[in-house]
Amino acid sequence: MKAYRKVLTFNTKTRRAFINITNEVEQALKDSGIQEGFALVNPMHITASVFINDHEHGLHEDYEAFLENIAPEKPHDQYKHNTGTFEDNADAHIKRQVMGREVVVAITEGSLDLGTWEQIFYGEFDGKRSKRVLIKLIGS
Amino acid sequence: MKAYRKVLTFNTKTRRAFINITNEVEQALKDSGIQEGFALVNPMHITASVFINDHEHGLHEDYEAFLENIAPEKPHDQYKHNTGTFEDNADAHIKRQVMGREVVVAITEGSLDLGTWEQIFYGEFDGKRSKRVLIKLIGS
Amino acid sequence: MKAYRKVLTFNTKTRRAFINITNEVEQALKDSGIQEGFALVNPMHITASVFINDHEHGLHEDYEAFLENIAPEKPHDQYKHNTGTFEDNADAHIKRQVMGREVVVAITEGSLDLGTWEQIFYGEFDGKRSKRVLIKLIGS
Repeated sequence: MKAYRKVLTFNTKTRRAFINITNEVEQALKDSGIQEGFALVNPMHITASVFINDHEHGLHEDYEAFLENIAPEKPHDQYKHNTGTFEDNADAHIKRQVMGREVVVAITEGSLDLGTWEQIFYGEFDGKRSKRVLIKLIGS
Repeated sequence: MKAYRKVLTFNTKTRRAFINITNEVEQALKDSGIQEGFALVNPMHITASVFINDHEHGLHEDYEAFLENIAPEKPHDQYKHNTGTFEDNADAHIKRQVMGREVVVAITEGSLDLGTWEQIFYGEFDGKRSKRVLIKLIGS
Repeated sequence: MKAYRKVLTFNTKTRRAFINITNEVEQALKDSGIQEGFALVNPMHITASVFINDHEHGLHEDYEAFLENIAPEKPHDQYKHNTGTFEDNADAHIKRQVMGREVVVAITEGSLDLGTWEQIFYGEFDGKRSKRVLIKLIGS
């Protein structure tokens, strides 16, 4: 069994952002030489997500509105995590759970086995600092 | 390492539906001959989910009501994805995120290593057209 | 390819609880001898989650409040699953979907490849009875 590991780094200018990382994952797969297996992609942080959905700006605004509606950032003191630790990112921990932590993607004949519209995104909910995404590939 | 791939196709009569696909995944596993490994099951679309929960009709109605409450289908123009692209399925993209994209199931001694009540479902949120589910198995 | 399987058992005193199981998963990995691969951790039940987030008590209270807000336990008869089956745990089935079923974690150089603050939790939403968590490791 082959294994391959790569770390991507992001530092978003805004607190929340969605970044398409499909090409980076495809490149890592090409570098690995793996033909058949699984790709795992996950943030190494607990206020961010990796998820698969549509590369469409309007939808990303809809996600932002949806997440702010069910887990609003402010007022910060509505969350015990914030009042107890002097952090302000409890909402980001909740948003990440709703959007999910990781994706696992099939590798078939040396490519990511994705449907036509499936694109891999890094979802940042507490940015403006350096954060990492892990790509781990296993297979043969 | 062995790898096995199979695609299922669904065309639901209703916009939203939950379909138990546990037997289809078990059959794919038997066909693969894999004894130990992982099974990945995911829709190849971004308005559908594969998830594991209970084969109980009342619960599925509860999921429908829950999802409609937090991300209602109508009015369609409440979503920028719909007003910007002339689609009407922004709610389906959101519902899919809440229910999750994929499941990974352990393969042990040639069977899906599921608990007593764990059943694998295809969750359709924008149906009435042909859509695919990918089963990818790796192991030995 | 190597495979390793271990089952943990929990019986929480309260209906809902979050339990840090990172050390148990690390120990299973050490016992397995696997150096490179993937770890899958999932409950074998459909009213519980395994998820990765922060070991911080205030945040866990925020999760409890968030989940009760979007899928409240009571009144029990608001859910068809409860009125149709004489169960009272429809809310737990919904909460589990929001928090997710499973995590897949990379194994690198014989350790769980986790970020600084990533900790693995068992999330119980219908406890006070014996329930199992499956750890399945594959790799080389």
